Amino acid sequence: MDENFYMRKVLFLAKKGSGYVSPNPLVGAVLVKNGKIIGKGYHEYFGGNHAEVNAIISAGDSVRGSALFVNLEPCVHFGKTPPCVDSIIKSGIKEVVISHLDPNPVVNGKGAAKLLKAGIKVKVGVLEEKSKLLNEIFLKFISQKRPFVILKAGISLDGKIAAKGGDSKWITGERSRDCVYSLRSKTDAVLVGIKTVLADNPYLTSHGKGIKKNPKKIILDTRGRIPLDSNVFKEPKDLIVVTTKSASKVKIKKIEKTGAEVLFINKIKNRIDLNELLKKLGEKNIASLLVEGGSEVNGSFIDSKLVDKVLFFISPMIIGGKEAYSSIGGEGINALKNAVKLKNVSVRKIGQDYLFEGYPIYK
Amino acid sequence: MDENFYMRKVLFLAKKGSGYVSPNPLVGAVLVKNGKIIGKGYHEYFGGNHAEVNAIISAGDSVRGSALFVNLEPCVHFGKTPPCVDSIIKSGIKEVVISHLDPNPVVNGKGAAKLLKAGIKVKVGVLEEKSKLLNEIFLKFISQKRPFVILKAGISLDGKIAAKGGDSKWITGERSRDCVYSLRSKTDAVLVGIKTVLADNPYLTSHGKGIKKNPKKIILDTRGRIPLDSNVFKEPKDLIVVTTKSASKVKIKKIEKTGAEVLFINKIKNRIDLNELLKKLGEKNIASLLVEGGSEVNGSFIDSKLVDKVLFFISPMIIGGKEAYSSIGGEGINALKNAVKLKNVSVRKIGQDYLFEGYPIYK
Repeated sequence: MDENFYMRKVLFLAKKGSGYVSPNPLVGAVLVKNGKIIGKGYHEYFGGNHAEVNAIISAGDSVRGSALFVNLEPCVHFGKTPPCVDSIIKSGIKEVVISHLDPNPVVNGKGAAKLLKAGIKVKVGVLEEKSKLLNEIFLKFISQKRPFVILKAGISLDGKIAAKGGDSKWITGERSRDCVYSLRSKTDAVLVGIKTVLADNPYLTSHGKGIKKNPKKIILDTRGRIPLDSNVFKEPKDLIVVTTKSASKVKIKKIEKTGAEVLFINKIKNRIDLNELLKKLGEKNIASLLVEGGSEVNGSFIDSKLVDKVLFFISPMIIGGKEAYSSIGGEGINALKNAVKLKNVSVRKIGQDYLFEGYPIYK
Repeated sequence: MDENFYMRKVLFLAKKGSGYVSPNPLVGAVLVKNGKIIGKGYHEYFGGNHAEVNAIISAGDSVRGSALFVNLEPCVHFGKTPPCVDSIIKSGIKEVVISHLDPNPVVNGKGAAKLLKAGIKVKVGVLEEKSKLLNEIFLKFISQKRPFVILKAGISLDGKIAAKGGDSKWITGERSRDCVYSLRSKTDAVLVGIKTVLADNPYLTSHGKGIKKNPKKIILDTRGRIPLDSNVFKEPKDLIVVTTKSASKVKIKKIEKTGAEVLFINKIKNRIDLNELLKKLGEKNIASLLVEGGSEVNGSFIDSKLVDKVLFFISPMIIGGKEAYSSIGGEGINALKNAVKLKNVSVRKIGQDYLFEGYPIYK
């Protein structure tokens, strides 16, 4: 039995839930008997059946005596649905192969333990790395109760996101922008600074690319300067304006009247405290946050060591200019030894551009 | 007869002259008879035999009736050596296959014409693109009498060449730096600004990597601020300090006393006129110039539309900071439509880094 083969099928199924299950993890399941796949399923939407249950249903009576492949440890608790472990035991499955345990404290090994006690053979660790990568958002959110932060920037080869006058349309090509729209549709929230709203007046929607879901739109607006006719107000129910006590109460009332949410955060060094913000967003079940700048917002997130992953779309173009806007502004560092190195870097071509992905290592 | 096969051999041979023949072109030659290579040669060093002659000598008596493959049109003029065309005719070669004609006005088609008149079959255009790329430096120099300008920068993913305090050691990895040393050994001159000398005190040598030849070192120093104990004075015969009338005469005398050359250039918009500089360097037979920054020098070259090729070594690192040094400073542009797009972009991994190569398109 090729465990990796079946687990790859599991991950393929799991991915189908992308954009629909947050803040739950992406989970797929496959049932194998006599070398044949006799059942499969995945967690399709938040609140729906777990992958294991869908696989068991799809297998029907043949499930007895089969082996279950699932990327995440089956749950033992009652959430929106009953515990999967009980369904597995009841179904007569004789073996369970898992990529990794669920770090969620209410599960974390208890699922595997209960299966073992019921006489079911359990194996953990098949395609563990790949599976953890697939659920990197969930794994951070469930253990830290804060969103997984992705910083995305479309930059010139010399690292700029706008010319000195602020012109930023367009640096990257159409295929990169489509890629960003698709990314937005799979992310719980997109965040920009007030300067980006004032300069570019973006919609911050997924433009119907990929899955037809728009993320929450979060605007950092310390002093409440956002114009009420900004494009982000087109769908106010998706809008969260993050501000501080520096904003006028009258303006706040006006924003709230549109249907948008106003979120007050304390200031630290005269800026919005991003740590507090992430905590609050976590409480709102926002598991993933896409930071899309501008320069100072990106810089603040890097300065605060809060970025989990970066996506730089590099356009083969030089903007130049001392006064042009750097992709990462903010305070920065004095000594290069304090630079933020990236690990697990990958580069791929997206149309005319090159997408750099990597994970910051903070000291 | 596979023409491309033999021409690839020719280009392989031609490359061996890299670093030794400037401002001459890189030329290789192969003699083929009855499907066998019976002679080969290349232009080995400036002033030495041309490739065709070396190939003819290596073939001995068997040369008669063979076909000559050579990447550049054979010369018809007396330079350091007699015309190759005459040697070809005398040798009894019956066919000549050429990648491209020599744009040098004293040759430019005359070589091919003379061969044809002598009853030799001539074909032009085999692996033309590849050959022109190999001799991109020569092709610009011979037609414009100015060096081919390569801008090289070792940058962070966010496009910076130094942290705000000026710290720049090291952004790129050892393999990228070795690559730069090797590049210097194949380039006629390396250029930096006075701020780079003051901040980093570089040697600007090839460190013996690749070919053991050091380039000329050119320092842009408008006001003659260079300290006489800077590391670039270690080999003063290779040093050219470019300055203006703003420099003190006493300082100029001191620089000249070290054995270094002082080159006066007029100012334009309070900076050294780079157009005039390139003209003067061309007159000195400097066919290739490697511009290595800092931020303002790189910016001036881009602003002046004088860069022929860029090499960006991108390190998987974020420096951040509004006040950090951008790889390309200078005036810059106001509207993105005026950004400098790059063509023929290629990306490859060099150790931990990624090397972006491309050719600016100016409007």
